[in-house]
Amino acid sequence: MKTKAIFYHAGCPVCVAAERNVAVALDPARYDLEIVHLGTAKARVSEAEKAGVKSVPALVMGGAAYHINFGAGIEVLR
Amino acid sequence: MKTKAIFYHAGCPVCVAAERNVAVALDPARYDLEIVHLGTAKARVSEAEKAGVKSVPALVMGGAAYHINFGAGIEVLR
Repeated sequence: MKTKAIFYHAGCPVCVAAERNVAVALDPARYDLEIVHLGTAKARVSEAEKAGVKSVPALVMGGAAYHINFGAGIEVLR
Repeated sequence: MKTKAIFYHAGCPVCVAAERNVAVALDPARYDLEIVHLGTAKARVSEAEKAGVKSVPALVMGGAAYHINFGAGIEVLR
């Protein structure tokens, strides 16, 4: 079974770079990648926060949040 | 040809989590992953700094540095 990985972003330049270089680099044979734009999917901000996301871009996988560089704080996306 | 990806760390708990969950998740069909422990490979600290690494753990790929959460500043590893 594949592991779920969610990449949260907000369309910022730092986010786009992380998506293009890190998120899409995950092994598709082992990971199911979902990409969520929190600027447009506002309803999912609380889900991201519950998963430990404090800023975007971030990858949530294996039960933990991995913040990749810093684009924007989650609080500005609420 | 595979893209080179270098994961720099210092053996810290944050580093270990990022290595186990993000670095090893990269697609081995597309990426050649090298894992460098800057606590033991001091000679490579300057190489990491030149690549833009400001803290560990960090992934350098596609010509840019992607800091994953924060374990330690690069300056304490010099």
